Amino acid sequence: MMEVYLDNNATTMVAPEVFEEMKPFFVQKFGNPNSLHRFGAGTHPKMIEALDYLYEGINASDDDDIIITANATESINTVIKGIWIDKILNGDKNHIITSEVEHPAVTAACRFLESQGVEVTYLNVNEQGTLEANAIRLAMKENTALVAIMWANNETGKIFPIKEIGEICKEFDVPFFSDATQAIGKVKVDVQDCNITYLSFSAHKFHGPKGVGGLYVKKDYTLTPLLHGGEQMGGLRAGTVDVASMVGMGLAMKLATSPEALHYEETEVKRLRDKLESAILELPETLVIGGKENRTPNTTLISIRGVEGESMLWDLNQKGIGASTGSACASEDLEANPVMNAFGSDSELAHTGVRFSLSRFNTEEQIDYAIEVIKNAIKRLRNLSSSYAYAPKSHESKL
Amino acid sequence: MMEVYLDNNATTMVAPEVFEEMKPFFVQKFGNPNSLHRFGAGTHPKMIEALDYLYEGINASDDDDIIITANATESINTVIKGIWIDKILNGDKNHIITSEVEHPAVTAACRFLESQGVEVTYLNVNEQGTLEANAIRLAMKENTALVAIMWANNETGKIFPIKEIGEICKEFDVPFFSDATQAIGKVKVDVQDCNITYLSFSAHKFHGPKGVGGLYVKKDYTLTPLLHGGEQMGGLRAGTVDVASMVGMGLAMKLATSPEALHYEETEVKRLRDKLESAILELPETLVIGGKENRTPNTTLISIRGVEGESMLWDLNQKGIGASTGSACASEDLEANPVMNAFGSDSELAHTGVRFSLSRFNTEEQIDYAIEVIKNAIKRLRNLSSSYAYAPKSHESKL
Repeated sequence: MMEVYLDNNATTMVAPEVFEEMKPFFVQKFGNPNSLHRFGAGTHPKMIEALDYLYEGINASDDDDIIITANATESINTVIKGIWIDKILNGDKNHIITSEVEHPAVTAACRFLESQGVEVTYLNVNEQGTLEANAIRLAMKENTALVAIMWANNETGKIFPIKEIGEICKEFDVPFFSDATQAIGKVKVDVQDCNITYLSFSAHKFHGPKGVGGLYVKKDYTLTPLLHGGEQMGGLRAGTVDVASMVGMGLAMKLATSPEALHYEETEVKRLRDKLESAILELPETLVIGGKENRTPNTTLISIRGVEGESMLWDLNQKGIGASTGSACASEDLEANPVMNAFGSDSELAHTGVRFSLSRFNTEEQIDYAIEVIKNAIKRLRNLSSSYAYAPKSHESKL
Repeated sequence: MMEVYLDNNATTMVAPEVFEEMKPFFVQKFGNPNSLHRFGAGTHPKMIEALDYLYEGINASDDDDIIITANATESINTVIKGIWIDKILNGDKNHIITSEVEHPAVTAACRFLESQGVEVTYLNVNEQGTLEANAIRLAMKENTALVAIMWANNETGKIFPIKEIGEICKEFDVPFFSDATQAIGKVKVDVQDCNITYLSFSAHKFHGPKGVGGLYVKKDYTLTPLLHGGEQMGGLRAGTVDVASMVGMGLAMKLATSPEALHYEETEVKRLRDKLESAILELPETLVIGGKENRTPNTTLISIRGVEGESMLWDLNQKGIGASTGSACASEDLEANPVMNAFGSDSELAHTGVRFSLSRFNTEEQIDYAIEVIKNAIKRLRNLSSSYAYAPKSHESKL
């Protein structure tokens, strides 16, 4: 049976050349980079190279910092709690602006701040699953300490108006934090062009290893560290640097963000995504949540009326296909997809979304196989579904 | 030239069989364990096995939690800031007891809490580099929220009276946090026997990979997470689990904490450490900082009068030997060893300590070579040293 992985927004395969790059740093070049001897120093050239790739990948300036973290979740918590400690606990500011469809780490960190008396504005998304930059302007207050808006959404792939938001934040002199976890390697991410103050990312979303991420910090916007301790990362993030993972993330960044790589995403990966999507949309009462415009090239979130998302995943899994009903970070509790809830759609729709997210490692043959399996699964599940048989056919009017 | 790594308290080589265990989880079994499909589920058996090894390694009860973190630094920050948020910010308590010779992560997190108005008692160590359990009793206050005392010291290897401290904490009903980073795999660590509430450790100190650590949390002592986000680790630590690292840490724990492994540490590793140490102590005006009693079997911190620590490291490095002047986490800034400062010793002594830390991968041949190189280096450096020629020979009276 063919295995087809279509859940690349949850995590990705480590690119074979990335793993090759990491291999020497486990058993051979295992030194602690902070050590003053050959075992430590032996790690430095590849670490410096990795940092270069990271700076280049997001177009950071040499004066800015890129901190190596354990994952985007750590990067996100570093920003939100750093702002809390540095700008809010001291009484300076007391308000954060974010959206209702951020990654759970942003939402949970903001909920925590609310429990500590911070005011948080959660902007809702529009029918296209995104928000108008002007909504940021309208939400700005005297005491706004941070704007936190993701670059691209994990569920829908929708791209937010980051450049416009960056301009508004600059105008109001409020730091702008964007979680680019779902954007790196899919679309161009340029921190200077978009006036980004803080940017988070995670290597395992762009064919790097799990357990390592990054945090971009614009010059002069240093935060109290989340991890206090040693002087690693210029005192901004303590803890022995995981050399293998850092080196892997660096190469993965280079491979994912080169002009050629982004061109391949925008053409070939998009072509395969569109082929898959079009085939499903040929079936009645299916739709792309948020519509087709302005998305990352690899993602489609499709609602299939009468087909419960979890059942669909089960059917696909039996045939070797991995997909998702939404963020893996939220899927353990089987709650309805928060993005679709945010759309204000009905509960049935919220339970009938299936997300397919491709990568450069998917092949035409895989997509052809997936199309066949998915169509058969929809047919089978709709035959079983009482809700499909009896529900009013007003599905599309809901969005 | 032979290469001899004698800096195992800074980091260790990943054991070859540990890396073998990790390998499948980069390119092949790369799924997100939270995903509801075969790619995710394929990671579960080895993750469960790894957790079993971790529970067994520290004798945790099934009702307790072991959280997978990025490193001991994250575990430490989770405990200290969790206590701050849960017990101090709400006005319940306002005091923490620790020692002056903790890992920089404990010290820096405590300094941060002080900046937020928390009272911290830093207990000094005695001439043997440890502290009397009774000092904890004397420092206890009505509003003490936490006692944080390391299991074994990274610089001297000195083992603290954890069982006695655990009993005192139980008597006062104060949570007891011990950083066991330097103890795991060197001496028996039993959280139940020692009434531990929180315990931190880092895989790369016991021949596991960098970038992964653990936090033991006793039943009913849950803390507000440092990393808010998804529901991983039962909501106690968000972020996609780094499966390869977790699996590697599990096997490394098993290999390092089996009765046979600990017996090997206590006999063979100790024998080689003692051989190295005795050979250096044959030279005049050398001494073991804190004395020889009650140490981890792999560590010796030796002061060599007239020999500046950094110069010694340079000489040794030229001959293929890696050692340390102290914690790699603090070594970047070339400050005097904080442990030796804590001893209250003079500034010269604080700059003349060299730490040799062995592991089960060191051989007799390596130690014989190291002895020869070290003796030659001491001779050469003492010939160059004006301070050795002219300083009063009262060195040993200082401790």
